[in-house]
Amino acid sequence: MSLSMSQASLPVFETGLNALSGVLDKAEAFATAKKIDPAVLLGSRLSPDMFALARQVQATCDQAKNGASRLAGVEPPAYEDKETTIAQLKERIARTLAYVKTLDGKKIDASEDREITFPLGATNKGHMKGADFLNHFVLPNFYFHLTAAYAILRHSGVEIGKRDFLGAIPIRRS
Amino acid sequence: MSLSMSQASLPVFETGLNALSGVLDKAEAFATAKKIDPAVLLGSRLSPDMFALARQVQATCDQAKNGASRLAGVEPPAYEDKETTIAQLKERIARTLAYVKTLDGKKIDASEDREITFPLGATNKGHMKGADFLNHFVLPNFYFHLTAAYAILRHSGVEIGKRDFLGAIPIRRS
Repeated sequence: MSLSMSQASLPVFETGLNALSGVLDKAEAFATAKKIDPAVLLGSRLSPDMFALARQVQATCDQAKNGASRLAGVEPPAYEDKETTIAQLKERIARTLAYVKTLDGKKIDASEDREITFPLGATNKGHMKGADFLNHFVLPNFYFHLTAAYAILRHSGVEIGKRDFLGAIPIRRS
Repeated sequence: MSLSMSQASLPVFETGLNALSGVLDKAEAFATAKKIDPAVLLGSRLSPDMFALARQVQATCDQAKNGASRLAGVEPPAYEDKETTIAQLKERIARTLAYVKTLDGKKIDASEDREITFPLGATNKGHMKGADFLNHFVLPNFYFHLTAAYAILRHSGVEIGKRDFLGAIPIRRS
């Protein structure tokens, strides 16, 4: 028995991005209740040299979009980073989810040993075996930005908990 | 071609925990250089109702220890949360890494469809299929606490970057 590459990636992105969309709903409700301009939240960051919330959300989306694309052997489309409202960020998430669903799971399943080449910064390239790319690059980066987005909002006072972070996971509680 | 359950878990924990140990080295050097009591860092948190750094490190270790144990069908040993220094937290990480290496990778590989039962809080239990438990519970929780530990330190001024977070990953750069 073993995991398929698509099983270890596609539903993980879907669950995480849907959870992030729900967290943004709570951020919107918080801003409304506290009469805070949501742009303040979108510009909040944990450290001056870390991304602000809007960029963390974009980066989470891009890890899913670019990671899944490259595993499927497809050059990912570029999405402009121009979102300035929570509604637009939620639309970015929805667009990413819809795009990822168009990818061929069978191609992703066949990517375990294939070398993936991807941009690292503006001029460099990284090369990793498909399974390593997923386990040691895409998933850690995806969760890094997802957690950072969550932590910025929790640091800002939004009432969210671990269940909001995990999202709709296939669990039975007793 | 497919991933094995052990490949999607054991080296991920090893890489992440070793990265965290390296991040703690940078925290120690930062505290020394700035003449800050390291206990201040260990007690720092991103929000009053989130874990402080020491507990984030313990939780990262426990996700690896407990997650890998349960996938291997072994009841995990309990580690007391009593670390009060960076050296002790690094020892906790080393102990966790050594423990995880004692687990039988073949048992983990056979866990994909097995139901895993695990504690949820003090009185409840969660039940998930092995593959779901890894992909939708253990990995997101592991990365949540790893990222939170990193973010607390970066928020505190420690100079760390994404490479410190990712650790020694199997990548070729060009």
